[in-house]
Amino acid sequence: MLSKNKIKLIKSLERRKFRDEAGLFVAEGPKIVTDLMAALHPVYIAAQAEVADMYGHEFFSQADEFDIVSDQELQRASFLRTPQGVVALFPIPDRHWMAPPHGLCLALDDVQDPGNLGTIIRTADWFGVEHVVCSFGTADVYAPKAVQATMGALARVRVSYADLGEVLGSARVPVYGTFLDGVSLYRQTLGTDGFIVMGNEGKGISSQVEELVSHRLFIPNYPADRPTSESLNVAVATSIILSEFRRREQQAQEGE
Amino acid sequence: MLSKNKIKLIKSLERRKFRDEAGLFVAEGPKIVTDLMAALHPVYIAAQAEVADMYGHEFFSQADEFDIVSDQELQRASFLRTPQGVVALFPIPDRHWMAPPHGLCLALDDVQDPGNLGTIIRTADWFGVEHVVCSFGTADVYAPKAVQATMGALARVRVSYADLGEVLGSARVPVYGTFLDGVSLYRQTLGTDGFIVMGNEGKGISSQVEELVSHRLFIPNYPADRPTSESLNVAVATSIILSEFRRREQQAQEGE
Repeated sequence: MLSKNKIKLIKSLERRKFRDEAGLFVAEGPKIVTDLMAALHPVYIAAQAEVADMYGHEFFSQADEFDIVSDQELQRASFLRTPQGVVALFPIPDRHWMAPPHGLCLALDDVQDPGNLGTIIRTADWFGVEHVVCSFGTADVYAPKAVQATMGALARVRVSYADLGEVLGSARVPVYGTFLDGVSLYRQTLGTDGFIVMGNEGKGISSQVEELVSHRLFIPNYPADRPTSESLNVAVATSIILSEFRRREQQAQEGE
Repeated sequence: MLSKNKIKLIKSLERRKFRDEAGLFVAEGPKIVTDLMAALHPVYIAAQAEVADMYGHEFFSQADEFDIVSDQELQRASFLRTPQGVVALFPIPDRHWMAPPHGLCLALDDVQDPGNLGTIIRTADWFGVEHVVCSFGTADVYAPKAVQATMGALARVRVSYADLGEVLGSARVPVYGTFLDGVSLYRQTLGTDGFIVMGNEGKGISSQVEELVSHRLFIPNYPADRPTSESLNVAVATSIILSEFRRREQQAQEGE
C-alpha cells in the first residue's frame, strides 16, 4: 500500500529543490534499481507483486521500508509513461569533486539535457570512465529523466559538480576538447590519463574552459567535402571519442 | 496572424494518423527549417518578426503561405518548451525503399524512441550515410520529436520504411549487426558497402533479421573484466560503429 504522503514525496523529487532538501532521488525499473542497490542503500521501495516475486521479497526488504503495491498505485508514483514495476528512493551521494589518482575523466561544461547527461554516464560506464565532473551549470544527474537514461550506471560512475576552471586549471594531465578546428580524432595523440571536456548542446565549450584545453580534437565528418549538419549530439560525440581512446589503449596493450 | 485552424492543423500533426492524412510534418527552429528548405518546398511558415528579419522575408515567402506571428501565437503552435521563432509545414517525402547502387545503409529494426531515431539520422548525415531503411515497427521519423532531433539532417538523408527481411534477404552486400557475442568492432573486417543493422532499445535485433546478418560486431567494453551496463544506448552504438567504418575508410584511402 502506497500512502498519499509517499506518492507526494516521490513526485516532489522531480524538482531539484526538493531532491536537495530530502537528500533523495528516484529510480525506476528492476534493472536500474537492482544495479543501484549494489552501491547505495535504498530508503524506500515500492514494487508490484510480480516484480517482487521475481527478485525475491527478501532482496527488496533490504530497503528501510518496502511496500507491495498495485498497478494503479505505482502508476501514480511513476515518472514513466509505462511504469516498470518498481520505484525506489535512494540517498543522493556526495557530489563534491575529488581528483582520482589517474585514468580518464569526463568534464561536462553545461550539458543541459537530462537525457543526454544520463546517456553520457551510461557510456562512460561502458568504457570504464569512473569519474565525471560537471560544471555547476550542467543538468542534475539525479533528475528522474537523467537517472533513467543512465540505466544503472550511477552505481559505478562517480558524478561530481565543481568549477571546471578550478578543476582543469590545477590539473597536470592533458585536457582534451572537441572543436570544429581541432585535429582529427583518428590522428591526435591520445593518452591514458586526462580530462575529456564536452560542451553545451548549443554553445559548445565555454571560452573560459577552452583556454584550459591542451589537445583540440575534431570528429571528422565524411566525406570531408559533403555538406552536413553543423555538429553531432553531445552524447554521440562523447561516445565516439571514448571509443577511440579505448581502441587505442587496447591496440597499445596488444603491442600492435 | 496564425489562424485557429492553422494551430489546430499543426497540433494535429503530433499524431501519425493525421500526418499521414495531411501528408505533412512540422519542423521548428531556423536551423532545421532552413536546412529542410534546401530539399523540400514548405507549404506553410509562421515566423516571429525578428527571425524573419534575420533570414529575409523573401526567403520565408518561398512557402505557399507565410505569416508573421507574435510570441504568443507561436507558443500555441509549438511543440517545444522554448519555441524557436519559426514553425514550418513540409510535405512528407516518399517513404518507399529503393536500394542505392552502393555505399553504406543503416537498417533500423524497431527502434522505438523518436529522439533516438532522430539522433541516428543526424549521425548518419555526419558520416555520409544517405540511406536509412526502417522496419515498419520503427518510430515515424516525421514525428515532431524525431524531426527536431535530426537537426535538419532529413534534408540530406533518405529515410524509408520496408520489411527488413525482404530488403536484407535480397541484398548481395555484407549485413553487419551488433551482438554481445560478436567480433570486436576494432578487429572485424569492415567494408565500404553494406547494411548496418541496429536493433530495438530493449530487445535488440529480432531473430528474423539476425539470420540475415553476415558480420557480427561487438563494441568492446573497457576494461573487458570490469562490471558494466548491459548495453549502450542505440544512437550511441550506431555512432561508434559509423565512426569506426569511416575511420577505416579514411585510413585505407590514405594508404596507411
